[in-house]
Amino acid sequence: MSEGQLGAVKIDRDRLWRDLHRTCEWGKGERWGEGPTDIGMSRLTLSDADKQARDWFVEMTKSLGCDVKVDAMGDMSGNIFAVRPGKNGGPPTYAGSHMDTQPTGGRYDGILGVHAGIEALKTMNDLNIETEYDTGVINWTNEEGARFPISMVSSGVWAGAYTLEKAHNLVEVGGGKATQKSELERIGYLGTLEASYKANPIGAHFELHIEQGPILESSGGKIGAVEGAQAFKWFIITVKGRDCHTGTTDFQNRSDAMLTAAKLILHSHNKATEFGCLASTGILTLRPGSTNTVPGWVQFSLDIRSKEDFVVSKLEEALKRDFELIASGEEVGNINAQGTKGRGCTVEWQFDTDSPATKFHEDCIKCVEDSARDMLGTNAGSQVQRMTSGAGHDSVYTSRHAPTSMIFVPCREGISHNPAEYCSPEDCGNGAQTLLGAILRYDRLRAEKEHS
Amino acid sequence: MSEGQLGAVKIDRDRLWRDLHRTCEWGKGERWGEGPTDIGMSRLTLSDADKQARDWFVEMTKSLGCDVKVDAMGDMSGNIFAVRPGKNGGPPTYAGSHMDTQPTGGRYDGILGVHAGIEALKTMNDLNIETEYDTGVINWTNEEGARFPISMVSSGVWAGAYTLEKAHNLVEVGGGKATQKSELERIGYLGTLEASYKANPIGAHFELHIEQGPILESSGGKIGAVEGAQAFKWFIITVKGRDCHTGTTDFQNRSDAMLTAAKLILHSHNKATEFGCLASTGILTLRPGSTNTVPGWVQFSLDIRSKEDFVVSKLEEALKRDFELIASGEEVGNINAQGTKGRGCTVEWQFDTDSPATKFHEDCIKCVEDSARDMLGTNAGSQVQRMTSGAGHDSVYTSRHAPTSMIFVPCREGISHNPAEYCSPEDCGNGAQTLLGAILRYDRLRAEKEHS
Repeated sequence: MSEGQLGAVKIDRDRLWRDLHRTCEWGKGERWGEGPTDIGMSRLTLSDADKQARDWFVEMTKSLGCDVKVDAMGDMSGNIFAVRPGKNGGPPTYAGSHMDTQPTGGRYDGILGVHAGIEALKTMNDLNIETEYDTGVINWTNEEGARFPISMVSSGVWAGAYTLEKAHNLVEVGGGKATQKSELERIGYLGTLEASYKANPIGAHFELHIEQGPILESSGGKIGAVEGAQAFKWFIITVKGRDCHTGTTDFQNRSDAMLTAAKLILHSHNKATEFGCLASTGILTLRPGSTNTVPGWVQFSLDIRSKEDFVVSKLEEALKRDFELIASGEEVGNINAQGTKGRGCTVEWQFDTDSPATKFHEDCIKCVEDSARDMLGTNAGSQVQRMTSGAGHDSVYTSRHAPTSMIFVPCREGISHNPAEYCSPEDCGNGAQTLLGAILRYDRLRAEKEHS
Repeated sequence: MSEGQLGAVKIDRDRLWRDLHRTCEWGKGERWGEGPTDIGMSRLTLSDADKQARDWFVEMTKSLGCDVKVDAMGDMSGNIFAVRPGKNGGPPTYAGSHMDTQPTGGRYDGILGVHAGIEALKTMNDLNIETEYDTGVINWTNEEGARFPISMVSSGVWAGAYTLEKAHNLVEVGGGKATQKSELERIGYLGTLEASYKANPIGAHFELHIEQGPILESSGGKIGAVEGAQAFKWFIITVKGRDCHTGTTDFQNRSDAMLTAAKLILHSHNKATEFGCLASTGILTLRPGSTNTVPGWVQFSLDIRSKEDFVVSKLEEALKRDFELIASGEEVGNINAQGTKGRGCTVEWQFDTDSPATKFHEDCIKCVEDSARDMLGTNAGSQVQRMTSGAGHDSVYTSRHAPTSMIFVPCREGISHNPAEYCSPEDCGNGAQTLLGAILRYDRLRAEKEHS
């Protein structure tokens, strides 16, 4: 297709918006306002609500004439691949994202990318567009890592970053017994296709996603052409002290695991500020859990992020050294400057997830830029911006074995992982239009490169 | 009885030790060592294990010829009163304590006091001792406040500090639906006797308890004659911020409830050190609870203690002022000196429990001292010490409407509320012997005062 022909390919923005909110009925979360879309999502991966969304995905893509590779179109990690045949077959150029959400998440994180992919298929059907190579849509399993605590684990299995066993054996957080495998079986999405880039190659991967940050909105940007993703590491920190009575044990004789954990969390924040990166604690549990007993055991999550791998490593090293000193009562970073030195606690680090900084493929980034500029017209100017993703995405793993880029659209105040997450109909439409244009441009680019 | 006769009254120390550990079979907790008694307790109030202990208490005291006032000898708050008739009746001189424990508690906290009271009855029976007035043993309900979160709530109801409804409507911590009343009904210990010092008066109350602190052991003390109890207040602090994504939200744009809670917990410790009192956090919960979501909601318990009421109030005032400032990002006590100022959080205080400093009755304290010195002989010297209780006890409430004192015995390293809690057979025996002597001395004193 020529640039001119491509310019004439327009998605149905109203249909996209309707479909998007229709499927949000499954796993509806907290209401935060009065509007019809002022409701959050709580669609944990492999829950009953996720099954309903998956059933819809399979039925819809089949109805659009997609090739059904294997039963339920799923691989053994529960990833679902819908493929629309092109002239020459070949590894498909995919639009991929996820339909699972955080426990108190929004209606756009992940969901938008899947719907935009389906809208792209619908538009190609409506306009009888025949692509050079196969195209398609992917729904990745457990991108959030909220229920089974490794994010993007199933695209990670596809990329060979994790074994299938590791993903299958993940146990749900909160004390439940269910594993990712047992839940895949329960809802009928444990496929038979090998979850691997070798057995099931991807030609290219484009992912539309809300930015989940404030940059585009605050700078008047409309489309982010994503060059890569931030590095991050996850750890589980266990602080061990000794239970004792709150009324009869003076500070000198305590090994207070909760007080120590509080110091470590504050110090991780102070150090991250010093290093110009991020550190966050999203989970904390303690034992035994009684108002008049000093806790002898506390466990908390630590999430470290930076654009640069070496900064993450530097912070990790610094905290591994400092946490031990602070727990033993040594004065580090002014944390133990006041208060009373007790008997000290021990600190254990458990490594959980490592996602190095990622560079996406220039061809894909360029296709996103061209598509966005074509859509926004000659005076697009700074409305199209190259940027780095602050969050991990399945595209981080696809980029290891396939040309990849992402498309970011603004979300209000950068709020995400929250019921108040919001992306306007205009921005949703812009993202989906850019996605389709990028897929078709890349399809043409592949053909040109092959025949040149 | 003359001092000489009293000196000949000896409890059976082996029988006490045997009984003590036999009843600990109900609600056995964690093993922490290899010895036969190196096992903790987990006998939460009104649990099935607590019912077994109560059934034993009722059966045992009945077999000792105790007067059964009402069905199950219980009042409407579940407190159980076993009364051994004396010559002239009258409000009984009681040995009282509790059989409930912390979730990971020890074998002596509370349990020892009840067993020592029963051993006193057994000894009086063995020696055919007829007291001037009724004597008896009390098992108080939910002293720990671990399952239903108000400690000493049922002796508090007896004393008029709480309404019966307040106690009945307490809901168990940890998300369960059971209330103190529903559990009293379930295990059959919702009595018909009015839970009140008016309907069911106490002549005097003596409570044997392990010290739960390091003072006696470190100073070579054998018996503590307790003059009163520390003041304490309990609060539930709620920090409200906003959930957001850990990777895409810079520190400036966060309202991080967990980071704020960490700062408040550290500051409460620093301030308590400054004021020479205690502050502790034993419970903390957060929402939503995901590694890559900054928590927008954290709730934690705050336990403040001092020998002086005004110091508790002073710390409460200081923290109410400082918590709000720290949460809003102001610099207080060096807590916000480093790190990044975010969007701030709000802090809500919920008042839970207030136990003012308590002064016990000089007559009772004197009876404890005399009994202890008689037992330890002429060179008792500093082995008998007057002291203040660091923990709250049911005696705090009985002392509002009846002459009261407590007897402390050493526990190893001052450890309590922990499976490793330990009180030697010698110290358990010393405490029980002192308890019986104090009861008999007070009985005689009452008669003397009445006839003089």
